[in-house]
Amino acid sequence: MGKIICTGLGPGDPDLMSVRADRLVRAATHVAYFRKRGYEGQARRIVNGMLRPDATEYAMDYPVTTEIPVSDPEYNRQLAAFYDGWAEKLAFLAGTETVLVLCEGDPFFYGSFMHLYTRLRDRAEVEVVPGITGMSGCWTATGQPITWGDDVLTVVTATMSESDLTTRARETDALVVMKIGRNLDKLKRALTAAGRLDDAWLVERGTMPDQRVHRLAEAPDKVPYFSIAVVHGQGRRP
Amino acid sequence: MGKIICTGLGPGDPDLMSVRADRLVRAATHVAYFRKRGYEGQARRIVNGMLRPDATEYAMDYPVTTEIPVSDPEYNRQLAAFYDGWAEKLAFLAGTETVLVLCEGDPFFYGSFMHLYTRLRDRAEVEVVPGITGMSGCWTATGQPITWGDDVLTVVTATMSESDLTTRARETDALVVMKIGRNLDKLKRALTAAGRLDDAWLVERGTMPDQRVHRLAEAPDKVPYFSIAVVHGQGRRP
Repeated sequence: MGKIICTGLGPGDPDLMSVRADRLVRAATHVAYFRKRGYEGQARRIVNGMLRPDATEYAMDYPVTTEIPVSDPEYNRQLAAFYDGWAEKLAFLAGTETVLVLCEGDPFFYGSFMHLYTRLRDRAEVEVVPGITGMSGCWTATGQPITWGDDVLTVVTATMSESDLTTRARETDALVVMKIGRNLDKLKRALTAAGRLDDAWLVERGTMPDQRVHRLAEAPDKVPYFSIAVVHGQGRRP
Repeated sequence: MGKIICTGLGPGDPDLMSVRADRLVRAATHVAYFRKRGYEGQARRIVNGMLRPDATEYAMDYPVTTEIPVSDPEYNRQLAAFYDGWAEKLAFLAGTETVLVLCEGDPFFYGSFMHLYTRLRDRAEVEVVPGITGMSGCWTATGQPITWGDDVLTVVTATMSESDLTTRARETDALVVMKIGRNLDKLKRALTAAGRLDDAWLVERGTMPDQRVHRLAEAPDKVPYFSIAVVHGQGRRP
């Protein structure tokens, strides 16, 4: 009997994966990871040069990422079939092998693995190893603490409506915004309305070799998928 | 010229510190860490058996933790003097040595090091290494993802007022509550008022050997300092 282990790989720098993740990656004989079709994939890139030469790799290509709006029932249908199919394959493999699923950041924090996890947990032994989140990598890159004392931290995705983004930005001490991509202009307007644009930072590819840190107001018009915006708390400091 | 490096050690299990943290800890000749006077300290405990035998240790004993209310000016005065004093010592040491400061979790996420950081960054070279947060360790311990799809995550400290806690719990998808300690009863009342008590979990000493996971409604009356409450998001899942 094998099992399925999903390990977080951290924010991007291989040196920031956990000791356990490092050991699991180097020993794995069966390795699966999500990626956008036609791309190497961020999780796979992090472990470059670490896998055993005889490891069998399973690239799980998303059938759709941004080609169909999330609100279209077809989006859900295609992704559900995709997760069903891979859950089936991994459950079968786990009958005899230990399969390592790679996940950037922390698997239970907005990670795709959770959609396999809910399909697998009653059919196979599944273990999850936490990782350093992308947001920790990004706020560390800004060189400023994110939360002090009793600060409230709110984490949102920039996919929400402009008015909701504005309210969330206004009603929190510290703010982290994920999934920026095409929503950058909306995010800028929302932070402006909340009076927080000048305190906001944008980190592209945090902890990766091509990391860039900007004031959000001065960020380029197009930002990569691995971009996170941060507004630091200003709480109690003796 | 030396420098000061503060490394996050992760949530408690030494296997969950980063590869970089592990390397820094094993190589360090000067190691500083915070602790409550009279205790070993969580950061120091995590690295048990990893330090060089000839490493010089600097235990930074908080002058006060819960003996004086945070609102008392004396609390602030004593802590400010404490951080001033250690910043002075570490800046002096960093003139010739590299000093490693240990920090449980992630240093820039509610960590005490930030109070040294702001005092040191103009006087010495200071580097910060992120870590897996205690909350990641805790939600992983519950065996359920914390955020799905476009869920909003709110992180609060249980030190806030009961009505503020209630509002925060009501207006978020996923919730993490830190600094529970003496505020457990207040937290239970607030979650009850928000209609979320039955979905709340309490994790004591997440990822440590004596980890315990309870439904918050069934938690013991007294919980250790390293306890975190979690309410999972229920967002989009294909």
